[in-house]
Amino acid sequence: MVERIAIIGAGPSGMAQLRAFEAARARGAVIPDIVCFEKQADWGGQWNYSWRTGIDDHGEPVHSSMYRNLWSNGPKEALEFADYSFDEHFGRPISSYPPRAVLWDYIAGRVEKSDVRKYVRFSTVARWVEETEDGFFLTSQDLIAGTTVREHFDKIIVASGHFSFPNVPEFEGIHTFPGTISHAHDFRGAENLDGRDVLLIGASYSAEDIGMQAYKMGASSVTLSYRSHPMGFDWPEGVEELPLLTRFDGENVLFSDGSTRRFDAVVLCTGYLHKYPYLPTALALDSPNNLYPAGLYKGAVWQNNPNIFYVGAQDQWFTFNMFDAQAWYVRDVILGRVSLPGEAERAADIADWQARYAALPDHDSEVVFQADYIRDLIERTDYPLFDLDEVVRIFLAWQRDKHVNIASYRDQTYRSVMTGTMASRHHTPWLDELDDSLERYLAPPASARGTHPRSVSGSAGSSERVRERGVPARGTLPTRPASAPRS
Amino acid sequence: MVERIAIIGAGPSGMAQLRAFEAARARGAVIPDIVCFEKQADWGGQWNYSWRTGIDDHGEPVHSSMYRNLWSNGPKEALEFADYSFDEHFGRPISSYPPRAVLWDYIAGRVEKSDVRKYVRFSTVARWVEETEDGFFLTSQDLIAGTTVREHFDKIIVASGHFSFPNVPEFEGIHTFPGTISHAHDFRGAENLDGRDVLLIGASYSAEDIGMQAYKMGASSVTLSYRSHPMGFDWPEGVEELPLLTRFDGENVLFSDGSTRRFDAVVLCTGYLHKYPYLPTALALDSPNNLYPAGLYKGAVWQNNPNIFYVGAQDQWFTFNMFDAQAWYVRDVILGRVSLPGEAERAADIADWQARYAALPDHDSEVVFQADYIRDLIERTDYPLFDLDEVVRIFLAWQRDKHVNIASYRDQTYRSVMTGTMASRHHTPWLDELDDSLERYLAPPASARGTHPRSVSGSAGSSERVRERGVPARGTLPTRPASAPRS
Repeated sequence: MVERIAIIGAGPSGMAQLRAFEAARARGAVIPDIVCFEKQADWGGQWNYSWRTGIDDHGEPVHSSMYRNLWSNGPKEALEFADYSFDEHFGRPISSYPPRAVLWDYIAGRVEKSDVRKYVRFSTVARWVEETEDGFFLTSQDLIAGTTVREHFDKIIVASGHFSFPNVPEFEGIHTFPGTISHAHDFRGAENLDGRDVLLIGASYSAEDIGMQAYKMGASSVTLSYRSHPMGFDWPEGVEELPLLTRFDGENVLFSDGSTRRFDAVVLCTGYLHKYPYLPTALALDSPNNLYPAGLYKGAVWQNNPNIFYVGAQDQWFTFNMFDAQAWYVRDVILGRVSLPGEAERAADIADWQARYAALPDHDSEVVFQADYIRDLIERTDYPLFDLDEVVRIFLAWQRDKHVNIASYRDQTYRSVMTGTMASRHHTPWLDELDDSLERYLAPPASARGTHPRSVSGSAGSSERVRERGVPARGTLPTRPASAPRS
Repeated sequence: MVERIAIIGAGPSGMAQLRAFEAARARGAVIPDIVCFEKQADWGGQWNYSWRTGIDDHGEPVHSSMYRNLWSNGPKEALEFADYSFDEHFGRPISSYPPRAVLWDYIAGRVEKSDVRKYVRFSTVARWVEETEDGFFLTSQDLIAGTTVREHFDKIIVASGHFSFPNVPEFEGIHTFPGTISHAHDFRGAENLDGRDVLLIGASYSAEDIGMQAYKMGASSVTLSYRSHPMGFDWPEGVEELPLLTRFDGENVLFSDGSTRRFDAVVLCTGYLHKYPYLPTALALDSPNNLYPAGLYKGAVWQNNPNIFYVGAQDQWFTFNMFDAQAWYVRDVILGRVSLPGEAERAADIADWQARYAALPDHDSEVVFQADYIRDLIERTDYPLFDLDEVVRIFLAWQRDKHVNIASYRDQTYRSVMTGTMASRHHTPWLDELDDSLERYLAPPASARGTHPRSVSGSAGSSERVRERGVPARGTLPTRPASAPRS
């Protein structure tokens, strides 16, 4: 009998898994019956932007933490698929840091071409998984019809992500703060922070990027509060890092260096939880966000029951191509092309990787570690091996660029390791670009410059210019493209 | 063997159920084994206020839709427990419209005195219920330990409420709105609406009360958009009702009367969903919010499986004392004191009530209908029967008061039907009272007036005075009382 496989989630990881199986089928393999459960109405996971926050239109937690104005915060050359290049998708060079809609178009384009949509049950949530001696029984709910169904599966692939459930700590006195309080998960755009004094709690990507968005959109001041280490960028005027806050007192916030500031708005950039509400304890990954979560052989096979798999459960330097490496590996375990060693050997392998991870001295070595992890997976499958050392060099250059100028690093360009194509320069510097749409991004430079009503000439910014920009930024936002050009 | 009963939720309905069983036990009855599952760290449900929005500290949807500054929007004389009066709790008369903290103190006070906390597993979420021929298997998760447990129960009482999962419709172009968008569920206070132009979508209690909060806290303008009928109150200057919006276009909103307005913030006051994510379809109530949801005999017994019960599933004129009537009735069904008729007779009874409900001509008759429903329940149990006709008269007077002056109806007083005590007048008119704490509320009039820094003299308001009040309102909020006086 053909095995039945459940994939939970059709975000970048689940889409990679669908593509992996389809690639095998296209080469003549017999693949299992696949059902992919996706609670949203479309695929893309994080990249399926929604204006909604908190709870969605079916009463489920909103999945995506994406904001309108997000642009890639790492070079696209570091996340490019090895089997589907940006060149193949767009038909011409694009810049190294595309906006949200452009990246979404790229990752959706690959699976649209793969005829895998038929495997996905959209608007259907995985509600509860039972582990039995005869495999798994998964109860799902069709959120439109309201009906629940219980089905048998031999294998389960968890691909529901771990940047969806916000980690929201308590802070003394925060209930007395009269301004707006939100978590980065619910941040949708900085336009309404124009003219406001904003506090961002956290010192990682969310704080960095939302801070710069607030600056770009004309916040009066941006304060970033760190727990252990400041990010240490050369922030533009009006953006400043302070140590951890000690307490709120109404609209005032006290910091551990003794300073006090008044704020209009607080955004908690305090990270996310590994949360799998549909899994019993014995199957649910429970880990801090790190590069080698405990209990996963090769970072993908659940040690206590190797019929359940996780894709994309790691903290991420690498993203889309790492999900591919994992998805191809999981596929080949399921197809019997890769045989798993026994429990003891798997445990020893996990321990080896974890020991190596624990000994990493710095961020740079983390990038090398994750490249080595990906290489180890790819070498066991037929996924195209690419120049991981060169991607590491791109990551390190990106880090340097950010420390040179946090406001303009996105104007830099890199060369694809997949195709050798050099990225083009975007027609408008990131700090001046207030239209994040795919149409605007792909418009030819001259016409784009000529027609964009908010185009601001000159170089990146004094706080004068930021305040000036704040006004037009509060106008109409671009609408989401209904269709997108294909190569 | 003693039956095992699961109560899901320790909000007002679950607390009523615990009190009902304890009242029987205190009079010598043998009661079943009871486990009450409460996902929050304390009981009170809606009344357990949290500054959090969206997703809570354990990754679960935030339950409470309560805001800092909420005061009862109906007279307390209409919701008073028949077996635990306001006099008994506070030891002296209080006003008819107390703030949140005072009502919470009252409902918590009754169960604190009843020694029922021992039945509640706090920070524990009901995750999944299986219906079998041998009763129910309920899987719950301890949110602190992370562990899931599967247990057998003979009966399940659903008391998780239906004002927790927001109904969030789509509106054309809403994704282009650059200001803040939230649902009333996530509204926590209007201080940050000071000086802003605010749109509230909806024409029920949330829109009415959040609109008046925004006015009180100094919003520049408050626009209320209705679908079918305006609320029609004599709104103060700066507050206005418009028909349904047709679409958003950036920061502008177009209405069906052809008008266009610019807004800084939108609050969706679009109601809530019946949502029971832990129940399979066959057990889950699926109904619009109304006074007699389909499938519930006596509004409480699930017709398709009378071992599962719902408390508090109705739309509500009556609240706390209606939950009591239901909880006493459900208790007596479980204890065998009330015998259920057969399926056909139950179906006929449901049909009778639903037909009567469908024929109600207006709001006033809805109040009478719900009073009759409550009387029908109380007469089958030993819950103290109270003067329901007089409560109906109080409801109708309350409606008149609101139409006389929506900004001052909370300054009116009523006489308790339980004790005959006349409510006292609060020392400060609601519109001038900017401190919603229990301490402030219970402070003697003279000292309260003398020490409150935001005290504003004079009568209720012109928009001049509102704008004047807006400024101090942005200061420190009162902290939540750690303990409260008891009688």
